[in-house]
Amino acid sequence: MDRSTEEAQTKEMDIRSLSSSHHHSQSERYIHKVGVPPKQNLFKEFRETLKETFFADDPLRPFKDRSRSQKFILGIQTIFPIFEWGRKYNLKKLRGDLIAGLTIASLCIPQDIGYAKLANLDPQYGLYSSFVPPLIYAFMGSSRDIAIGPVAVVSLLLGTMLQNELDPINEKAQYQRLAFTATFFAGITQVTLGFFRLGFLIDFLSHAAIVGFMGGAAVTIALQQLKGFLGIKKFTKKSDIISVMHSVVASAHHGVSSNFILLLLRIKFSCTGKKNKKFFWVPAIAPLISVILSTFFVYITRADKQGVQIVKNIKKGINPSSVNEIYFSGDYLLKGFRIGVVAGMIGLTEAIAIGRTFAAMKDYQLDGNKEMVALGAMNVVGSMTSCYVATGSFSRSAVNFMAGCETAVSNIIMSCVVFLTLEFITPLFKYTPNAILASIIINAVIGLIDIGAATLLWKIDKFDFVACMGAFFGVVFSSVEIGLLIAVSISFAKILLQVTRPRTAILGKVPRTTVYRNIQQYPEATKVPGVLIVRVDSAIYFSNSNYVKERILRWLEDEEEEVKAATYQPRIQFLIVEMSPVTDIDTSGIHALEGLHRSLEKREVQLILANPGPVVMDKLHASSFTSLIGEDNIFLTVADAVSSCAPKLVEEQP
Amino acid sequence: MDRSTEEAQTKEMDIRSLSSSHHHSQSERYIHKVGVPPKQNLFKEFRETLKETFFADDPLRPFKDRSRSQKFILGIQTIFPIFEWGRKYNLKKLRGDLIAGLTIASLCIPQDIGYAKLANLDPQYGLYSSFVPPLIYAFMGSSRDIAIGPVAVVSLLLGTMLQNELDPINEKAQYQRLAFTATFFAGITQVTLGFFRLGFLIDFLSHAAIVGFMGGAAVTIALQQLKGFLGIKKFTKKSDIISVMHSVVASAHHGVSSNFILLLLRIKFSCTGKKNKKFFWVPAIAPLISVILSTFFVYITRADKQGVQIVKNIKKGINPSSVNEIYFSGDYLLKGFRIGVVAGMIGLTEAIAIGRTFAAMKDYQLDGNKEMVALGAMNVVGSMTSCYVATGSFSRSAVNFMAGCETAVSNIIMSCVVFLTLEFITPLFKYTPNAILASIIINAVIGLIDIGAATLLWKIDKFDFVACMGAFFGVVFSSVEIGLLIAVSISFAKILLQVTRPRTAILGKVPRTTVYRNIQQYPEATKVPGVLIVRVDSAIYFSNSNYVKERILRWLEDEEEEVKAATYQPRIQFLIVEMSPVTDIDTSGIHALEGLHRSLEKREVQLILANPGPVVMDKLHASSFTSLIGEDNIFLTVADAVSSCAPKLVEEQP
Repeated sequence: MDRSTEEAQTKEMDIRSLSSSHHHSQSERYIHKVGVPPKQNLFKEFRETLKETFFADDPLRPFKDRSRSQKFILGIQTIFPIFEWGRKYNLKKLRGDLIAGLTIASLCIPQDIGYAKLANLDPQYGLYSSFVPPLIYAFMGSSRDIAIGPVAVVSLLLGTMLQNELDPINEKAQYQRLAFTATFFAGITQVTLGFFRLGFLIDFLSHAAIVGFMGGAAVTIALQQLKGFLGIKKFTKKSDIISVMHSVVASAHHGVSSNFILLLLRIKFSCTGKKNKKFFWVPAIAPLISVILSTFFVYITRADKQGVQIVKNIKKGINPSSVNEIYFSGDYLLKGFRIGVVAGMIGLTEAIAIGRTFAAMKDYQLDGNKEMVALGAMNVVGSMTSCYVATGSFSRSAVNFMAGCETAVSNIIMSCVVFLTLEFITPLFKYTPNAILASIIINAVIGLIDIGAATLLWKIDKFDFVACMGAFFGVVFSSVEIGLLIAVSISFAKILLQVTRPRTAILGKVPRTTVYRNIQQYPEATKVPGVLIVRVDSAIYFSNSNYVKERILRWLEDEEEEVKAATYQPRIQFLIVEMSPVTDIDTSGIHALEGLHRSLEKREVQLILANPGPVVMDKLHASSFTSLIGEDNIFLTVADAVSSCAPKLVEEQP
Repeated sequence: MDRSTEEAQTKEMDIRSLSSSHHHSQSERYIHKVGVPPKQNLFKEFRETLKETFFADDPLRPFKDRSRSQKFILGIQTIFPIFEWGRKYNLKKLRGDLIAGLTIASLCIPQDIGYAKLANLDPQYGLYSSFVPPLIYAFMGSSRDIAIGPVAVVSLLLGTMLQNELDPINEKAQYQRLAFTATFFAGITQVTLGFFRLGFLIDFLSHAAIVGFMGGAAVTIALQQLKGFLGIKKFTKKSDIISVMHSVVASAHHGVSSNFILLLLRIKFSCTGKKNKKFFWVPAIAPLISVILSTFFVYITRADKQGVQIVKNIKKGINPSSVNEIYFSGDYLLKGFRIGVVAGMIGLTEAIAIGRTFAAMKDYQLDGNKEMVALGAMNVVGSMTSCYVATGSFSRSAVNFMAGCETAVSNIIMSCVVFLTLEFITPLFKYTPNAILASIIINAVIGLIDIGAATLLWKIDKFDFVACMGAFFGVVFSSVEIGLLIAVSISFAKILLQVTRPRTAILGKVPRTTVYRNIQQYPEATKVPGVLIVRVDSAIYFSNSNYVKERILRWLEDEEEEVKAATYQPRIQFLIVEMSPVTDIDTSGIHALEGLHRSLEKREVQLILANPGPVVMDKLHASSFTSLIGEDNIFLTVADAVSSCAPKLVEEQP
């Protein structure tokens, strides 16, 4: 079959399918009209919207049809999920949790000491924050895999914001008080968001923004820590024996740190490929071992006397109360509040992202709002027991998961180990060199630089990539806050751009079907002579109503020019607007449609709507737009609309 | 035919149409695959987006394929449209413009004097602003119907914002200078927005917000003016002859003002019904006549000496230069800038709304961005010639239109009349009572309270109504700025709500078709056993990706429960997501789809996509999601997808 015959055949088939669909609807005398949904009660509609916005997950469903005592028990279990899963707890699970708990404890102790330094606080505060908050979380949280404690990014953020207000060395006491105040308000923010079910607000920090933000924070932290290394290097320029000794120590760190990178890559590798699961503990306990080794080394050589900076004093004993240290009045109340809100939001974002990731892996439900209440409560209690903002840690949660944790009991185990550490062995950390802590921090944060994710962003969505890079460079070249602001702004701009300039498309008939599709996506689709079919790809709101109207008219003008240029083409007499993607319309949108109708009338083009949704149909009726264009110019499908135009067209054809 | 037979028949038809569509696609062996659009060049894509965002109206189209000199002439004509339409100008048009120009002049003179008082400026500044800006606009503007000059809302806004900074009586000189500075920056803002094609920004002030804002401003202005009336009434309690005389004057005003209301209603009536067009001039010249009469009356009775407040001095002569009065440095530069930006935006909103309305009525194109440049230029020049912010006036534009204006020449006529007034007859306004001006202002602003529009908002869109009321009460009970802020916030909240909580719907098969539609809108639509069809009604972005995923899973759970309760129902084995309305997806959205796929795999439910659009298809490919779920699980239509499920389902049925 040569080309022209094939084409002719396709054309014939097209005509057949066009007319047959038309014939079909005529012969059966059963044209489906666009449904108008039953008029809803205003109050009911309002309640539905409210429910869908704030209670999308229907948290009260289990409470239905229960007796009072059952409701009470359910309530307790809702606030403290431990009473639910605790009943099914067994020895097998404990074994997993024990191993996981010990592993993350060994990882968290050196990290905590380092992170506390990022927040410009004494090292013991890092440990404090790994003692109380995980305990609270174990009772209230619903994630099984998250590991709670101080994290690098929040520590950096807190440190940066606090030292804008107070000097951490000269005004140490106030600085600490402000830190507790910020922690308190971070917790309050988190509880509030969760309680009022505003959890969806954190969704506005997009994945792309988080990737960029975390990467930027990681680079900033790593560079800060590297400065420490360089400082030590300068020191070794004095070529005496002790300096050499020290440079050995330093190079040892370097060796350790390169080891770390390798090991961390291994975690990532095993995390994604789920291989080498047996060796999860190797990278996990490496930090502790290197801390022990280097501390011993410094103690033996007394390198601290030769300028190697060490942790020095680290207070023994568990968390003292800090209730009276929180600023509940005065100027610092407001400052603490502001810092707390930002730190709380970032903490939430990190914890929820982690929680969701692992919940998806193990396929269990995670109620974001409940989780926020848990995280908030733990920070409020933390702020009263000398802790600073704690949240879920990316690196430790991954290790926790790898180590086979089963429930939040692993956090309790970790907490117990930290308790023992605080009570008995903190003095031993006195000689730990700062450089080793820096290397541990660098290795922890390097995992946050997710080049793979950034590459994927570039491949999938250029706009996301720009948001990611904006956040990254904002954090690196300006500050953590500016980076956040840039990321959020770009993300919002994207949403606004979408609602301001929605896509429109010209539809054509896919050959041998009655389906009409975008002719750019389906080049084989053919236009119907005399009919222009436009699809609007968004709700029509005030922000785009004018654009949509003008864009449709522009499509029409373009088409009319084309028709004029061609021979034997009837002029455009019908404009079908495919409304399937138009999920909503507001008054401005209806004004725009009215304007469109008026402009088309002047050009003697009939406006036809295809498949408006329930909400749109409702509003078209309310505004009597349906009677303006005529009920019979609204069709269920584009095919129906086209087949209704066909006979009218033929008559007018010259 | 009884009911059961009919039902049975429908069912049979359903089965037939289901199987026939399936058979059809099988027999022809021509299943249409979802098209992947040709890969676009990154640069080209970027350019297209940029063009669609900023140059949606393709302003450079006429410049294509022209010689240099032609381009120059076109360029001049683009900046000064008068050189384009001026060539076709004729006597007939002049006649229309002359009548319209004289009419709006008679309306604007008393209004200007009153509006200047709203802005706490001397009366002549109102007249100045009706002299220079309309002239400039006539050369640069492209609307044929707009009447330029000071308007009530902008005058009030300017007055309120300026007196927050400076006292208009004790710091009169600085106050005036700040007013010119604000006017200058209002103009600069407008030019900038237009030049950088950011005109779409004003679309963010929704129709609903404008209705509320204008209404609120009108009420505020009317109440302010009424206070003046009440003050006069108190005065008449002294029962001497002069007070009586005065109360006659006052009651005359009242008479006049009630007349006004009637007449204004008439304008509205004739404006909508297009009747009584002959008498357009009655309400239009009534203010001037009442000013003349009352002025004469006061002059005769010397009522001003008895406490009737009069305009007093009104400077003779045309606009003096005010170039040197603008603050180009110092503290007031910034304040003027801030006030100017707000006033400029509001001015733009009003002018563009008017321009668009009349352009739509007469069906001519209005380039919003070009219009902004014209309005901005006129205010910049105005600020240097002792004018304050001028824009398009609702009431005068309506009169202009009614009086049969043809082009912007009517503005030139008006400007000439104002010039003559300034040069020769301003001293005569000395004895004009303030009360009559107040009544004129009240009547002018009462037209801004559009109860009909508010009612329509309530009927069509409750959310819009809330935004409208928010703006209204914000302006009335707090301030103009707060009202604006509320309106913009509510409008934004609406957009964000839409992108955060998009609608989803369960689809069913409309009987005797192969069309699948929302079962809430089409109650006759039937679900396909073993298959759940969900439509997502929005682009899937970071702000809703998580919600969309969880919502789909919740639909599935609900459906599964229903299936369990019913007998002889196969379990859900296929989940078809209708992607037609999903116009875009970002990385978070793809992660959500991956998560959905993973969750469904665990439940042994196959994920199937129907009709993803070009952008979505592109990104699904880029992220290799297509290979994850399998290319053959993506279909052109829901019907195709269902017919592919059908045979697989039968086998698994018990």
